[in-house]
Amino acid sequence: MSDPFVHPDGRCESDDVGAGTRVWAFAHVLKGASVGAGCNLCDHTYVEGGAVLGNNVTLKNGVQIWYGVTLEDDVFVGPNATFTNDLRPRAAIKKDEWELVPTLVRHGATIGANATIVCGITVGEEAFVAAGAVVTKDVPARAFVAGSPAVQKGWVCTCGDPLNADLACARCGRRFRAAADAVNGVVPAES
Amino acid sequence: MSDPFVHPDGRCESDDVGAGTRVWAFAHVLKGASVGAGCNLCDHTYVEGGAVLGNNVTLKNGVQIWYGVTLEDDVFVGPNATFTNDLRPRAAIKKDEWELVPTLVRHGATIGANATIVCGITVGEEAFVAAGAVVTKDVPARAFVAGSPAVQKGWVCTCGDPLNADLACARCGRRFRAAADAVNGVVPAES
Amino acid sequence: MSDPFVHPDGRCESDDVGAGTRVWAFAHVLKGASVGAGCNLCDHTYVEGGAVLGNNVTLKNGVQIWYGVTLEDDVFVGPNATFTNDLRPRAAIKKDEWELVPTLVRHGATIGANATIVCGITVGEEAFVAAGAVVTKDVPARAFVAGSPAVQKGWVCTCGDPLNADLACARCGRRFRAAADAVNGVVPAES
Repeated sequence: MSDPFVHPDGRCESDDVGAGTRVWAFAHVLKGASVGAGCNLCDHTYVEGGAVLGNNVTLKNGVQIWYGVTLEDDVFVGPNATFTNDLRPRAAIKKDEWELVPTLVRHGATIGANATIVCGITVGEEAFVAAGAVVTKDVPARAFVAGSPAVQKGWVCTCGDPLNADLACARCGRRFRAAADAVNGVVPAES
Repeated sequence: MSDPFVHPDGRCESDDVGAGTRVWAFAHVLKGASVGAGCNLCDHTYVEGGAVLGNNVTLKNGVQIWYGVTLEDDVFVGPNATFTNDLRPRAAIKKDEWELVPTLVRHGATIGANATIVCGITVGEEAFVAAGAVVTKDVPARAFVAGSPAVQKGWVCTCGDPLNADLACARCGRRFRAAADAVNGVVPAES
Repeated sequence: MSDPFVHPDGRCESDDVGAGTRVWAFAHVLKGASVGAGCNLCDHTYVEGGAVLGNNVTLKNGVQIWYGVTLEDDVFVGPNATFTNDLRPRAAIKKDEWELVPTLVRHGATIGANATIVCGITVGEEAFVAAGAVVTKDVPARAFVAGSPAVQKGWVCTCGDPLNADLACARCGRRFRAAADAVNGVVPAES
């Protein structure tokens, strides 16, 4: 790990970017953006002032992270996946009528390619939003959601594979159980 | 208002861009594009020659406006929302067989984040296309449409909030009535 | 045809790009990408090392072609259409656990604007993926698919128009027949 790497065609105007983070070509990190260490901000990404990224976050190409969006550590955002921070955007709105609506993506979650995340929701820990999904409500931890609008189709493991009916992963062997409050999804069995 | 502002990493090749319009980093406005005053063309946007934008239009990041697409004043286009101008694109088509199919977005309309607008349609005045929607037919004035393909779910106010069953807005108090020809949507009550 | 053209604001690091190919502003072709002749790589496109493009391929703006994705000759990819090469992306995955999942788009196919292509599939010859579709399984040759998830709605001609019930095109007169193995779609009548 070392200082952030900024590609000669990338632009980084924030002084709050962690060691080892890479800002690739035509990517743009604005003043006031908070970006952790070891992140990978691919070509044509954009991180707005006020946006918060933890450590080891991957933003694939064409992703924007707006003021009001928080991505915890180890979040993966697929190419062209799209966030928002306003539920009723209008070009003519007056600045003092504008209302910021936050979004939180918890540790280790995956946002699939070209998915759309409507603001005001939480995507739970290690949850998995399928490619192309349009997410309009909270996603429980380790839930797999897909479709337009996105609905839950199952549960996923830390490794990304589906969990079986016993909440176990056939590939890596991890086991899970329902959270105390089922709306929160599933958690490691030994937790 | 003053001359257009072009970020050092933005490119503006059109001489038909209005005062106060901003062209941000890695945005590209081509020769022959017509852009009004006070527009905000965010990072990674693209305005093709022949495209027409009115005044005070917002293009969030990753939006392209093609030849054949017209956005009237005060239109908001969310990030990665995508327009088209060809109903049967083929890489091998001969130039003289290519048919331009226009799209019109009327005054004050909102195109949500990552929405897809199939060409050949009109999005009515102050209509609201939800994030992630795939629009395949005309959208009446002040209609709210969502889904893939997009269907109408209700009506919206000038301010962006939903209208109630009486076509009134609980937030800002504006009132509307059905247009003389219902296919045209709803219009201000006193009009 | 001549050497590739690279716009002053485009970046081409591959030495395997064919004559007459154009790399437009803020587009980026990486070392190790294989790109044929006569391609059109529009603004804000990205071609990764290991990606393979045939001749006369069009990538409209905002498209990325990843390692593991192969586009044969004459493929058209609409703006912001999104490919993938990983079925379970996680930011924290170890490199030696990562599994590449390939995608093949056959000769002359069209991927519509803002479509999402989940990896591991083949899009057949001259098939047509509608704008905004989310493709999760193989697409037969000349099939027209739309929706989220995408389902087949009909057949299309080489020219892009729909085929009628007799597998003929009213516009250009071409005729087709079912392939010997129907799962493969339809083929020219005289083939």
